[in-house]
Amino acid sequence: MTIQSPVEANGRTYPTPKTCAIAICLDGCEPEYLDVAIAKGLMPTLKRMRETGTDRLAHSVIPSFTNPNNLSIATGRPPSVHGICGNFLYEPETGEEVMMNDVRFLRAPTIFSKFYEAGARVAMVTAKDKLRALLGAGLKFDEDRAVAFSSERSGETTKAEHGIDNASEWLGMDVPEVYSAELSEFVFAAGVKLLQDFKPDVMYLSTTDYIQHKFAPDQQGALDFYAMFDKYLAQLDEMGAAIVVTADHGMKPKHLTDGSPAVVYVQDVLDEWLGEAAARVILPITDPYVVHHGALGSFATAYLPEGADRNDVIARLQAIDGITHVLTRERAVVDFEMPADRIGDIVLVSGENMTLGTSEHRHDLAALKEPLRSHGGLTEQVVPFIVNRKIDLGNMPDLRNFDAFFYATTAAAI
Amino acid sequence: MTIQSPVEANGRTYPTPKTCAIAICLDGCEPEYLDVAIAKGLMPTLKRMRETGTDRLAHSVIPSFTNPNNLSIATGRPPSVHGICGNFLYEPETGEEVMMNDVRFLRAPTIFSKFYEAGARVAMVTAKDKLRALLGAGLKFDEDRAVAFSSERSGETTKAEHGIDNASEWLGMDVPEVYSAELSEFVFAAGVKLLQDFKPDVMYLSTTDYIQHKFAPDQQGALDFYAMFDKYLAQLDEMGAAIVVTADHGMKPKHLTDGSPAVVYVQDVLDEWLGEAAARVILPITDPYVVHHGALGSFATAYLPEGADRNDVIARLQAIDGITHVLTRERAVVDFEMPADRIGDIVLVSGENMTLGTSEHRHDLAALKEPLRSHGGLTEQVVPFIVNRKIDLGNMPDLRNFDAFFYATTAAAI
Repeated sequence: MTIQSPVEANGRTYPTPKTCAIAICLDGCEPEYLDVAIAKGLMPTLKRMRETGTDRLAHSVIPSFTNPNNLSIATGRPPSVHGICGNFLYEPETGEEVMMNDVRFLRAPTIFSKFYEAGARVAMVTAKDKLRALLGAGLKFDEDRAVAFSSERSGETTKAEHGIDNASEWLGMDVPEVYSAELSEFVFAAGVKLLQDFKPDVMYLSTTDYIQHKFAPDQQGALDFYAMFDKYLAQLDEMGAAIVVTADHGMKPKHLTDGSPAVVYVQDVLDEWLGEAAARVILPITDPYVVHHGALGSFATAYLPEGADRNDVIARLQAIDGITHVLTRERAVVDFEMPADRIGDIVLVSGENMTLGTSEHRHDLAALKEPLRSHGGLTEQVVPFIVNRKIDLGNMPDLRNFDAFFYATTAAAI
Repeated sequence: MTIQSPVEANGRTYPTPKTCAIAICLDGCEPEYLDVAIAKGLMPTLKRMRETGTDRLAHSVIPSFTNPNNLSIATGRPPSVHGICGNFLYEPETGEEVMMNDVRFLRAPTIFSKFYEAGARVAMVTAKDKLRALLGAGLKFDEDRAVAFSSERSGETTKAEHGIDNASEWLGMDVPEVYSAELSEFVFAAGVKLLQDFKPDVMYLSTTDYIQHKFAPDQQGALDFYAMFDKYLAQLDEMGAAIVVTADHGMKPKHLTDGSPAVVYVQDVLDEWLGEAAARVILPITDPYVVHHGALGSFATAYLPEGADRNDVIARLQAIDGITHVLTRERAVVDFEMPADRIGDIVLVSGENMTLGTSEHRHDLAALKEPLRSHGGLTEQVVPFIVNRKIDLGNMPDLRNFDAFFYATTAAAI
């Protein structure tokens, strides 16, 4: 089946690929991880790509969290368009916190669904299943032209719902532990086999940042991870695919010198100022998998009680050491391109070495074995953007990680 | 004399040029001016440069005014480093407004002075003399290796102070009117003759935006200007120079449908809220030459009286239609890279079609013959960045106009 060109998604027009256009989202890939691994000779393929292809840095969307950025890469647009600005949202009317990883929260079609509609073969592998559900929105599996599954649930996939029966068996790899480097390795291995056997026109591979939360760039756990990635990257590259390697966000150490996490407990602060539980602090990084970051990141939003002096609260929060930005909802909509109806009255960002918490007693940090590394703020918005072919990245002053598929298809159309 | 390499200025290292490295700052050159003139076939040289050289857009510094950006281009750094954040500043202690175009306000050495110290030949021509004084800081004229003058005062230059006697006579062109296209044409003509005769290693040409304030991109006055520029650009290019064409800021229409200027008179607003003259609104665009913009731009700063509720003022200003940003001084320092001691308690930015004034009665708009076009805000921060050679613009996510000399020398070092 030929692809009906051009494919349009959310107001952007994508070139028709002549070879497979792949975007790889390396979760939590602070650029330093690549620099260090390359300097140690562990990433010969990526090193060559940087030299002979196209090598830039790009900006992620804010909050620099996994879901908002993966959905931006999948739709080519910021959260103000696709609506996913965190892992969950708060509904002031009901007082409920609602997980945002349901397809009904997605406000824009994905590039994959548009390519599928145009007749293309589409494949996607994610580490965690929560993302697969969102990213797979709009895909159909009845024509054998789409595959979408997660390593996490690779033992339970069906042809009807994922385009493939038992992906773990198909790949010949066991279903990995959810907290492991193997969860991401499975993604790469599946990508290589899909490229060989399924021959997609467009493919998305998205990993998990368990390793990056745990290890700094020069630590063995990180070095092993990137050396492993480079071997799979070499195979994808050899098969002639056009590849963009980018990330959803960076990763910074956010702990004190004694190794304990650096936190401003914002709910405690607001409780003291406005009364117990009068304000409601939401940490959109929170998800069912919190072992590796204890739900501590550099972004928070808060709903204030009626009658609270928002500007006074903003000014007082702004004065707290380690908090770098306190914005009104209106300002966050403009500056961070966030959806107004899914954030609180104020939005807070903390600095390179500081996180934002709710109440101290609500964070179970016992599982945090290593000094905390995390993300969410502006200090984690610079990410790699590397293409294995020499292309013109356009003339816009700001390159975004969510331009990945535009340039992957551009490179694949050469 | 050979240049002692490498030349370092303000923490950046500049490649040693093998041919003349030229940066051209087209004052007020909203990218659309070039697009329209090229589309009409009036800029064959620039069209070719965009196709065969390097073509990007870049971000200016905020405020998007002439002096802050020219000094950023000249130092390679933002206003937080060089200190020049407008045409004048307010000293709350004395209650005085002080022109900032004196060299004593400049906090960083220019790239020109560093190249001069390293043995290079340096030339600079500006349209207005106020800029020449600032940009010429640290240059010496006793070794016949530096030339720095303005078209405005080209009839009064001396070898001792400008490196050349009577530049107007030398060039064979009359001293132009200060409000004219010729003031900029003189800059280009002098640049061509300097390149031929003086053979500088590094040259800076900086025009005035009289034409851009007056004419929209499709109007004859603008088209004539860019056609004229292209002829000189062709000559500079033919002589083998490495050239970066950029701008200090863009330019947007800021008038109502009846042609009258769109203004929020901030001093009047604050007088009403806080009492007559209690706050002090400063418009750093103001200068002795206000005919073409009536001192109306999209950036203002204000000093508030002691005891004023700054956060309340910010919130109320933020609610005014057309005002897009109201920041605390602290926030402006971080987000706009401004020097904390030269701005007021708050900083205001207005939108694409709105300006900020002081009190209505203080603006003499009688001289404004055309519907107002102006700049100063975030909507005028995107500027052209075009190099006549194919070079790698580096991998940083954000290209700045003040990277001009870094890439001009990079291109000249090939």
